[in-house]
Amino acid sequence: MTTNERTVFYVSDGTGITAETLGQTLLTQFPNYTFTRVHIPFVDSEKKAQAAVKKINSSTRNKGVTALVFCTVVDDEIREVMKSCNALFFDFFETFITPMEQELGCTSSHAVGRSHGMSDSSVYLDRMNAVNFAVDNDDGVTTMNYDRADIILVGVSRSGKTPVSLYLALQHGIHAANYPLTEEDLDKSYIPEILEPYREKLFGLIIDPIRLQKIRYARRPDSRYSSLNQCRMEVTQIQKIFKREKIRHVDSTSKSVEEICATILQLTGLKRNN
Amino acid sequence: MTTNERTVFYVSDGTGITAETLGQTLLTQFPNYTFTRVHIPFVDSEKKAQAAVKKINSSTRNKGVTALVFCTVVDDEIREVMKSCNALFFDFFETFITPMEQELGCTSSHAVGRSHGMSDSSVYLDRMNAVNFAVDNDDGVTTMNYDRADIILVGVSRSGKTPVSLYLALQHGIHAANYPLTEEDLDKSYIPEILEPYREKLFGLIIDPIRLQKIRYARRPDSRYSSLNQCRMEVTQIQKIFKREKIRHVDSTSKSVEEICATILQLTGLKRNN
Repeated sequence: MTTNERTVFYVSDGTGITAETLGQTLLTQFPNYTFTRVHIPFVDSEKKAQAAVKKINSSTRNKGVTALVFCTVVDDEIREVMKSCNALFFDFFETFITPMEQELGCTSSHAVGRSHGMSDSSVYLDRMNAVNFAVDNDDGVTTMNYDRADIILVGVSRSGKTPVSLYLALQHGIHAANYPLTEEDLDKSYIPEILEPYREKLFGLIIDPIRLQKIRYARRPDSRYSSLNQCRMEVTQIQKIFKREKIRHVDSTSKSVEEICATILQLTGLKRNN
Repeated sequence: MTTNERTVFYVSDGTGITAETLGQTLLTQFPNYTFTRVHIPFVDSEKKAQAAVKKINSSTRNKGVTALVFCTVVDDEIREVMKSCNALFFDFFETFITPMEQELGCTSSHAVGRSHGMSDSSVYLDRMNAVNFAVDNDDGVTTMNYDRADIILVGVSRSGKTPVSLYLALQHGIHAANYPLTEEDLDKSYIPEILEPYREKLFGLIIDPIRLQKIRYARRPDSRYSSLNQCRMEVTQIQKIFKREKIRHVDSTSKSVEEICATILQLTGLKRNN
């Protein structure tokens, strides 16, 4: 292993999502390094911690460079075991919990694995209902549930509506439907009549025609659907509609689904149900 | 505002996902507190930072208790502005980046908002393809793409297959299909013939019959489908099949979708494409 390669361990008493999020954010700051990632979730006993330490130490020993460990274990005894490992150890909990306890004037619960569990089951159920809603109301298959929608995404085919709806549902418990504007809809230069009653819930996605063409081509090559002309025409039309009808929208071209969702939440002020 | 209520600000130069994930993990340790959350994403200029500081200061002033700020801003100048706010300030970047730079022997890139963006566009495209795959292969609508599946979830109706498939796709770029075992399938006590060629990709979900009954009842009350007898029968049968056919499985009853996915990844060793 050259010195520009490192093994990174994400160790947690729960899913490991927090450890991974923290670690990934820091690792992206070192683009010249190659990182091999190892996930060790559900470390909720000293025995499991000892096994994790063994794994980490053998990595440091065998590869000849110090491993990095991002650890979010809450329990003091288990964490003590973890800290004995031969690695650069980032202790998330210990670093931040003391100043929080001082400010809030009480000790923390030290409860294990709370952050991505089902601790609040009604909130969790709402979130799963939102996922079912997004799946059931994907791609305009039905409009009869739109009175229950928090948001209805509109855009041309393949502008990113489905992943955005699903992400809003899965991560934030938001009831998101989506409706594709077809060529027929676009020809009319107005939003389809069926969407009129839900005007306040509409949110548009636009996309650069060249990017759209690439995405469509991968799905249906050599079709009118994936021709640059067609993509240009559809995008021009939908931009006109969004402008005329004053529909808020975001350009999805160079944004990840996470960035699109963060932008939507910021622009709409939609409440996260999580 | 009583002293058991606090306003929490998530401030980021990107989506704010890292700030929120880290903050939430710490907040869950203080179950006796009520937290009001305010998200301020895309703080990528000193001007935006000044506006954020103003908002935070006015919260601390108006509510009479110090706000908490979880900040993941990378740029030094913008962070300096943020740090001037009147709040308990948690600075993730500054806390962890220095020891990382020392260990890796180089300075970090200080590039803004990298962790949830599209910096690696081929990885991102793979992830979106996985989302389309999960939607297209939900609920056994087709089995013709199973050769491209990384995993095929099997379980009775409403055991949690859809959210798990979507989460695996959205978060980890895993091509996850799912197939519901119907009453007819369950009667035969073997896995359906159509799944035979994909035996190695099968992963089962089981669920407690009482919980299943509640979930089904919310969807279709007063039906045989949602009767406790029917739920008991189906769960008993599927457990027999999983045992006889040696299909790895996990009990989804008291696990969140995040916990189920972390368990699946741990048991199968499936590679995350992110």
